[in-house]
Amino acid sequence: QVCLHISMDKIEKQYVGFATLPNQVHRKSVKKGFDFTLMVAGESGLGKSTLVNSLFLTDLYKDRKLLNAEERINQTVEIIKHTVDIEEKGVKLKLTIVDTPGFGDAVNNAECWKPITDYIDQQFEQYFRDESGLNRKNIQDNRVHCCLYFIPPFGHGLRPVDVEFMKALHEKVNVVPLISKADCLTPSEVKKLKDRVREEIDKFGIKIYQFPDCDSDEDEEFKQQDKELKESTPFAVIGSNTVVEAKGQRVRGRLYPWGIVEVENQSHCDFVKLRNMLIRTHMHDLKDVTCDVHYENYRAQCIQQMTSKLTQDSRIESPIPILPLPTPDAETEKLIKMKDQEQDKRGAATEGSRHSPSLNQENR
Amino acid sequence: QVCLHISMDKIEKQYVGFATLPNQVHRKSVKKGFDFTLMVAGESGLGKSTLVNSLFLTDLYKDRKLLNAEERINQTVEIIKHTVDIEEKGVKLKLTIVDTPGFGDAVNNAECWKPITDYIDQQFEQYFRDESGLNRKNIQDNRVHCCLYFIPPFGHGLRPVDVEFMKALHEKVNVVPLISKADCLTPSEVKKLKDRVREEIDKFGIKIYQFPDCDSDEDEEFKQQDKELKESTPFAVIGSNTVVEAKGQRVRGRLYPWGIVEVENQSHCDFVKLRNMLIRTHMHDLKDVTCDVHYENYRAQCIQQMTSKLTQDSRIESPIPILPLPTPDAETEKLIKMKDQEQDKRGAATEGSRHSPSLNQENR
Repeated sequence: QVCLHISMDKIEKQYVGFATLPNQVHRKSVKKGFDFTLMVAGESGLGKSTLVNSLFLTDLYKDRKLLNAEERINQTVEIIKHTVDIEEKGVKLKLTIVDTPGFGDAVNNAECWKPITDYIDQQFEQYFRDESGLNRKNIQDNRVHCCLYFIPPFGHGLRPVDVEFMKALHEKVNVVPLISKADCLTPSEVKKLKDRVREEIDKFGIKIYQFPDCDSDEDEEFKQQDKELKESTPFAVIGSNTVVEAKGQRVRGRLYPWGIVEVENQSHCDFVKLRNMLIRTHMHDLKDVTCDVHYENYRAQCIQQMTSKLTQDSRIESPIPILPLPTPDAETEKLIKMKDQEQDKRGAATEGSRHSPSLNQENR
Repeated sequence: QVCLHISMDKIEKQYVGFATLPNQVHRKSVKKGFDFTLMVAGESGLGKSTLVNSLFLTDLYKDRKLLNAEERINQTVEIIKHTVDIEEKGVKLKLTIVDTPGFGDAVNNAECWKPITDYIDQQFEQYFRDESGLNRKNIQDNRVHCCLYFIPPFGHGLRPVDVEFMKALHEKVNVVPLISKADCLTPSEVKKLKDRVREEIDKFGIKIYQFPDCDSDEDEEFKQQDKELKESTPFAVIGSNTVVEAKGQRVRGRLYPWGIVEVENQSHCDFVKLRNMLIRTHMHDLKDVTCDVHYENYRAQCIQQMTSKLTQDSRIESPIPILPLPTPDAETEKLIKMKDQEQDKRGAATEGSRHSPSLNQENR
């Protein structure tokens, strides 16, 4: 038995074990289950319900009796929520589809996006109340994580109603524009329409969902897929609830006298790209952007409004904790001070004029 | 070309792809990196610093110059934070060790845990301010996720100071009691002391960190490990900063004239069990319990105090939004009402008496 005292420096790098942390997170997430809320919007008849069925194969789950007959995805007339619990390889997903009114169907479509933006705001408001309350266990998160917007394949680009809708929503939700019913367009027509829509999205300053940058350490195949994905927007899609036999294979498709449109054939349309993005690669990112960007913006606006309302309404000298803090934090105090100064100035000048300075949110 | 319309029911179950969600979460967590804050507490000379070194092999990282010489884990005199960035198999961990004063070393040890509980509360308070503020991006989470409490191996169980310390901390942090320097106890002495400590923990109503229940779908090996883990508390540990050669193997150990104590030998002590629990299996759960239980309790108490302070201080008729809500939620209103009624009663009786009802937090 020989014993040596050796400096710690000289031992080979040993394994501590915290490399298991991602697995601990993985395990926990599987245990807890996932949820995702998808909104579909666009004029009636553009195949919204069919596409959702094709994406999630929800019809396949109907024998589980989780979806009431009247809850079924059908022609839409108002905002309707459908929730299904689905499971795949032990992973549980509570999927909520928010179906919107057949908007744009009326003769006068002014403000037809109002019920939709109101709905999104209501979900944010509810979450804000819940996370500000005393009991935060098991908060139901009904925030909308993504909105698929269906652009008609007819016409030569975006219509005014499309522009206005997306601009009304783009700071509240991740908007993913789709060219619907793309089986009525030839490949060159699809390309032309896509180019046009992309140009107009740029021109009108519409902020659609941005795919996050690909990490430099990803493998080449992943990078290539990511590049193709980014170049494919707006996805040209075709949905189908029927299965047809094409070249001996049973596939989801549409049977025409001149041939079969295969939904999952990448040379026919971008359905597979959309599904991969929405479900297999970016679902979690869509949720993160919703929480970290859209919801945080809503929350900051809310707090700003409350802060300014309080300082305008009351004549109390002592500082009131508007936020659940013993004392307001530096930023809130700055905001209150700004508001106070404004009011002082205004008190001397016009009393009734309204002015809302844009929120100066720093990014640390 | 034969085409068939087939009911959706009849197709084989297809793969939608949301089973990749845990992998999306896994990927994101690796990208973001992890952090963990561990507190060590107990009298001077019980081997706190040595054990931390043994657990995280921090000495091995000193050539990375991430730890200043003066920041080195040494004999402790006050609350000192040491932070190291370590990486293992591509997983990054920002580890913070909170070293506490050589508490219990004084002649009069009344309230000697006060600086420690204050420190924990301050971290909660800071987090509460941060998460209530406008800018919540990149909040630094300094909350203490676990406190290793070192019980001396001498004596016949818990001393009054041990009981008082753990009771002062048990609702603020995950307390993991350890029997320190267990190499001065024979196996039967270890068993006796463990039994005694467990009994006293029960008797005095000390709530140490509870390992979560094992899922029924886990494999047998995992279940067995989990069972052994639960039966081993309080872990009897031995630390060492030196490497010795035992039976041809170089191991962390302690060289005695009568033999070698191997830190990682499970028949010598519970070091490996502690490390597995703390780092490899329960690190994420320790963080979750900190956020979901200890922090939530702190936050609820804060809000309760603010609510009651507001209703006592001011004589304003209109409801003030104390929480960042357009209107207070139902639970807060109930609390305010309770407080109001109490005040009315007290106004008629003794004015100065203090009474704080325990917060009636429902679990939905």
